[in-house]
Amino acid sequence: MKFDTPSPLVDALRDAAAEIEDTLDTLLPAEEGLEAALASAMRYATMGGGKRLRGFLVLESARPFGVARASALRVAAAVEMLHAYSLVHDDLPAMDNDDLRRGKPTTHKAYGEATAILAGDALQAHAFAVLADEDTHSDSAVRVELLRRLAIAAGPRGMCGGQMLDMLAERGNEAPTEASIGRLQLLKTGKLIEFAAEAGAILGKAPAMQRHALCAYGRDLGAAFQIADDVLDATATEAETGKRTGKDQQAGKATLVGLLGLERARAQAERLAAQARDHLETLSDRADLLRMLADYTIARRS
Amino acid sequence: MKFDTPSPLVDALRDAAAEIEDTLDTLLPAEEGLEAALASAMRYATMGGGKRLRGFLVLESARPFGVARASALRVAAAVEMLHAYSLVHDDLPAMDNDDLRRGKPTTHKAYGEATAILAGDALQAHAFAVLADEDTHSDSAVRVELLRRLAIAAGPRGMCGGQMLDMLAERGNEAPTEASIGRLQLLKTGKLIEFAAEAGAILGKAPAMQRHALCAYGRDLGAAFQIADDVLDATATEAETGKRTGKDQQAGKATLVGLLGLERARAQAERLAAQARDHLETLSDRADLLRMLADYTIARRS
Repeated sequence: MKFDTPSPLVDALRDAAAEIEDTLDTLLPAEEGLEAALASAMRYATMGGGKRLRGFLVLESARPFGVARASALRVAAAVEMLHAYSLVHDDLPAMDNDDLRRGKPTTHKAYGEATAILAGDALQAHAFAVLADEDTHSDSAVRVELLRRLAIAAGPRGMCGGQMLDMLAERGNEAPTEASIGRLQLLKTGKLIEFAAEAGAILGKAPAMQRHALCAYGRDLGAAFQIADDVLDATATEAETGKRTGKDQQAGKATLVGLLGLERARAQAERLAAQARDHLETLSDRADLLRMLADYTIARRS
Repeated sequence: MKFDTPSPLVDALRDAAAEIEDTLDTLLPAEEGLEAALASAMRYATMGGGKRLRGFLVLESARPFGVARASALRVAAAVEMLHAYSLVHDDLPAMDNDDLRRGKPTTHKAYGEATAILAGDALQAHAFAVLADEDTHSDSAVRVELLRRLAIAAGPRGMCGGQMLDMLAERGNEAPTEASIGRLQLLKTGKLIEFAAEAGAILGKAPAMQRHALCAYGRDLGAAFQIADDVLDATATEAETGKRTGKDQQAGKATLVGLLGLERARAQAERLAAQARDHLETLSDRADLLRMLADYTIARRS
């Protein structure tokens, strides 16, 4: 991400991204054996890029509860694997048919379509395997709650349902409304971000009130982030974002920016970011990076 | 399955398939909301067909340990969802490009490619969500062990790795050997069958020795089953099996039948089935259906 001013958040994001990258390198399968091409595609899809927003949320939602860094990093890596799989499949020719992602060829462009489908499938399974392993947390009740929440966030009433709504919206039989776009985005990207913000509280066996607060934070942050993304798509250049821009409009994709216009969409993102911040009021100053993240989500330029 | 002679196994398989079907109907998402098409495709891919071999293995491996039927049925349904997802993705144009499955159009033929990819993705997530739910077993250590084993069986060192090997084998750069075919099949179909046979022991908190015995049973049974499948593909008609036959040969797919010839392949399946049966020697007569299954795996005609 690029910011207008230097910030402790920028350093924290950069450091977290590096730690998550190292953890992914350790946890992803090695490129060995006859099926090395699969491991290679999984690594290509997951490593070396991205803001690691979801992983960062896991790490920072774990901080107030004194969770061991190694535990939080494994969960952060698992969420990033899940996210990476969703991007690989969304980019496929049958779906959004994208050639460029994070400034490099999409996985199916680099490895072929069949390997890309499989790499996505394997990343999803591997994310669950990482969470289930006892290295993630010694308490099996904690591990199974992480698994349960992630599986729901990834499934038909979460990410996959959202992608389905997105495809249907592009076919455009019904005029989009603020409510229909909000639901689409809540399912498609919001649920996983919500999980990431809740995961630290699960790992830390936080009181229910704080766990719910983090969940609500993730929900509002995710919504703000998505609107900011749409604003960026409409206003930024490819060089700034490392991905094709203006594509929502080209694809006739319904976004809040298209529905409300840039200014009202920006105002809504700001309102949501402020609301996200408010959810954290019962948390100590160890949640300050989460507070800063809410502010900066709407200020970023990539 | 069709058998030469009536058998208590036939009744048990039929009854189990019906119970699993009911459980799937309860556990799969309802076709409602804007994303109903996704739920519909998930149901189309999973319901109404198949031998339910994997689900049956869960039920019967649970029986010796007195596991509650409702628990075992949920796990059986989850394994069948996972299996169904793998078939949907394997059938895709970029993979095996099959139009017919269980006597009806494949999911991408019926729903389009994008929805089929998503339905597979959602089925995988949903299978994990079912296992993680406390209705599956009250002990979170049991649930997380089921999740861990299934995630490994489904991932890069399991089913996805096997499908990768299968794709590479079809491109045919290296001559197949008995060992390379064996490894391919162990990963592609064997690991999930192994899990199904082990799952009942996990649910029943069986002693390690019996759990390992069931795992070994599943491994040998899976291998026998796969060879028998290849024999069927080479000898049976479409009307008998409800899917396209002779396709291995047409696709130049390496099978043990192709490598060893029909008679030696049949002999190997018989040896593996006998070995599978031997693993059960420490189990009571409550494992008799598993014993019969080993015998009949190689006798079936569809």
